Amino acid sequence: MDPEFIFWYNCSMKKMNTTPISGTQELLPEKQAIFDEIKSRIREVYRKHGFQNIETPTIDRTEVLFAKAGGDTEKQIYRVVKTAETDQDADQALRFDHTVPLARYVVEHESNLHFPFKVTQIGRNFRGERAQKGRFREFYQCDIDIVGRNNLSIAYDAEIIATLHEALSTFLKPSMLIRISNRKLLTGLLKSQNLESKSKEIFSIIDHAEKVSPEKTQQSLNEINLTESQIDILNKFMAIRGEREEAVTKLKSLNIEDETYLQGVSELNQVMNSLESQGLKSKISADMLIVRGLDYYTGTVFETFLPEYREIGSVGSGGRYENLAGHYTDQNFPGVGGSIGLTRLFYVLSEHDLLSDIKHNLIDITIIPISENEQAYALKVANELRAKNNSVDVILTDKKLSDKLTHAAKISKYGIVIGEDEASTGNLTLKNFETGEQSKLGA
Amino acid sequence: MDPEFIFWYNCSMKKMNTTPISGTQELLPEKQAIFDEIKSRIREVYRKHGFQNIETPTIDRTEVLFAKAGGDTEKQIYRVVKTAETDQDADQALRFDHTVPLARYVVEHESNLHFPFKVTQIGRNFRGERAQKGRFREFYQCDIDIVGRNNLSIAYDAEIIATLHEALSTFLKPSMLIRISNRKLLTGLLKSQNLESKSKEIFSIIDHAEKVSPEKTQQSLNEINLTESQIDILNKFMAIRGEREEAVTKLKSLNIEDETYLQGVSELNQVMNSLESQGLKSKISADMLIVRGLDYYTGTVFETFLPEYREIGSVGSGGRYENLAGHYTDQNFPGVGGSIGLTRLFYVLSEHDLLSDIKHNLIDITIIPISENEQAYALKVANELRAKNNSVDVILTDKKLSDKLTHAAKISKYGIVIGEDEASTGNLTLKNFETGEQSKLGA
Repeated sequence: MDPEFIFWYNCSMKKMNTTPISGTQELLPEKQAIFDEIKSRIREVYRKHGFQNIETPTIDRTEVLFAKAGGDTEKQIYRVVKTAETDQDADQALRFDHTVPLARYVVEHESNLHFPFKVTQIGRNFRGERAQKGRFREFYQCDIDIVGRNNLSIAYDAEIIATLHEALSTFLKPSMLIRISNRKLLTGLLKSQNLESKSKEIFSIIDHAEKVSPEKTQQSLNEINLTESQIDILNKFMAIRGEREEAVTKLKSLNIEDETYLQGVSELNQVMNSLESQGLKSKISADMLIVRGLDYYTGTVFETFLPEYREIGSVGSGGRYENLAGHYTDQNFPGVGGSIGLTRLFYVLSEHDLLSDIKHNLIDITIIPISENEQAYALKVANELRAKNNSVDVILTDKKLSDKLTHAAKISKYGIVIGEDEASTGNLTLKNFETGEQSKLGA
Repeated sequence: MDPEFIFWYNCSMKKMNTTPISGTQELLPEKQAIFDEIKSRIREVYRKHGFQNIETPTIDRTEVLFAKAGGDTEKQIYRVVKTAETDQDADQALRFDHTVPLARYVVEHESNLHFPFKVTQIGRNFRGERAQKGRFREFYQCDIDIVGRNNLSIAYDAEIIATLHEALSTFLKPSMLIRISNRKLLTGLLKSQNLESKSKEIFSIIDHAEKVSPEKTQQSLNEINLTESQIDILNKFMAIRGEREEAVTKLKSLNIEDETYLQGVSELNQVMNSLESQGLKSKISADMLIVRGLDYYTGTVFETFLPEYREIGSVGSGGRYENLAGHYTDQNFPGVGGSIGLTRLFYVLSEHDLLSDIKHNLIDITIIPISENEQAYALKVANELRAKNNSVDVILTDKKLSDKLTHAAKISKYGIVIGEDEASTGNLTLKNFETGEQSKLGA
């Protein structure tokens, strides 16, 4: 048949547009298996580090979700409406991150939780972003958080960073660089320069400094009417990056006597020092350009990059927040957390072909009974192989043997053909579809 | 402090209602760990049986979702609306089951799939049910399906039932009974009695027969104006249940010469025969009261019950559908599938205290450094224990030792205290918090 005709013929059989909506991820089974493998490696590292899994509902009250959201996030929230609307179902929406539901969870269940509460949430979140390549509206995030009651040792900041790094290293081939700062530094610096009223603009300028030219950054600083000495000290500050001792020396040499600033220097020093003692010295760098746009961070902030693939952007990030649940309670729950945006990361890593080493056969072994007479025996063999942890399919379709073998080779690594002889003797041959090698089963 | 005052004091600190919305499941970490363990046992059985995992988006076009839905389901669908609405985002809703997205998936990706396509989906679905105890609006379903192109051997029906039974038996203590029928039997019987025009009413009466009194069922049959001989044959049919050979003999003795009916007898016989040869004879029963309300089933139908706990209802069910994707394409995709409604099942099993044997410590080992000086060494020991697959937490909080031990005993099974001596000698003692036993680490 003419290929063009086949195409037309296939198209004509569809009665409805069956593409998934834009901004969602829908993978073929082979790709899904790789995605699942990465997700389970992340989950396993989180588990080993003692983070307890929780799941919050996808749907929550808009009142709860909107309490913290602001600006763009609020515009992106998906509201949920029942087709047959009733009053009690009004004002619900889909969660847009894991932090807001976690805050609600901690307030709701605090009397039953043990603090510091080390917690992980791995699930789908939703944002009505404008549809474009690599932007997702429904996406997996793999979060870890450590939440204290009233106080939380700075030592936990390093624990979050180390755990996230270990999780990422289970599937990322390229080396990583974790860039670390502390929001107290800039906050204290601005206070010392009487620039608190311009702090929003200055945080934003520094946050964007890497995305624009140096000239543009200077122009932006000029536009908000700073003195020459203010611009000078900000430029010196922004230029500080590198190893801990060098960075700390430079930060101190700015001679800023603000208490918050000095606390920032001390915390940055402690966090990096702890990471060094955990063998991560070559993976971390102090970096004053790391600000993290969201305004709820108050201390440590970090972002992880692949130096060989900077265009990919951050592959894992997070920070410290002084008060997780301030919108919901007067109790104080300080926390530190980090997140891997898995759906976007999986997409960009696939695009850059950086996932090649995770091979995953759909199933291990396909058993091919030659006729219906061997089906019962084939099912028995299958269950024996499953008991040894193999994933096993049995072809129960009435097809030609060659068609069965073609199907088996597409979905599995090994095949076992069972005819009359094999069923009566129990002598089975395992065929490796990739190499063509054959071996006696159990030998 | 007076307990009432504490209660009032705690309440007063909340600024907002933080309960999750009704009809959603939100578990404490201990319970979540059990839920996760059950989910992963189900997933593991599905994997071993060669089902490939896929994930479809939670949000889909209403056009796609509504194509199959009807009546109550359509009323229960949650529509999704962006806060800042744009035209391109209109008409989206949350999936209410896995079957509809699977149909869309198969049509969309059919040229890249290998048929028969053995597929599993484990995820959350959404229905705006009226809120009541044990009814969920957001719930996990654990589905398996086998989808063929143009045809699919009846042998796969038994594979679905056997897999579902094996998955359920990994966490259900009480014995199960799988009640099996075939929709071709009743369809053929009604055809032979010229009752096709009343088939909807009769399916519904049989479907409800176990929920009402026998008198009520007879009354319902009388109300739709059947002849005495029609009522007689329906009553004989409904009474048929039990072992395969007996049931098949009784079905044949009704002397119904309709081709569909006879095909139903033959298929029921084959499915049950295959399950018997897989060692499930004592677990299955033919049962003509099993109809399954939803009208898309066309052949095998089954429901799994716990005979000792009939009030729990079905714990796993499914069946054969002749044409999965008829709404989306003119191609023919017959399939057979089954599902475990995990959220509801978990809820009722908890209520009946049938989950007691799944114990799950939050984490395995907590390491307690006595002072900050031992933190670095404690983190090193933690990583060594994690490499041996343990989940390990290190208490980095500055608290009294007794408080640290109390916290550790709440979240983990074992504890290791590290003071100056332990850090210098490396001689570590593992304490079992449950038994109080102590042992040398590594001994």
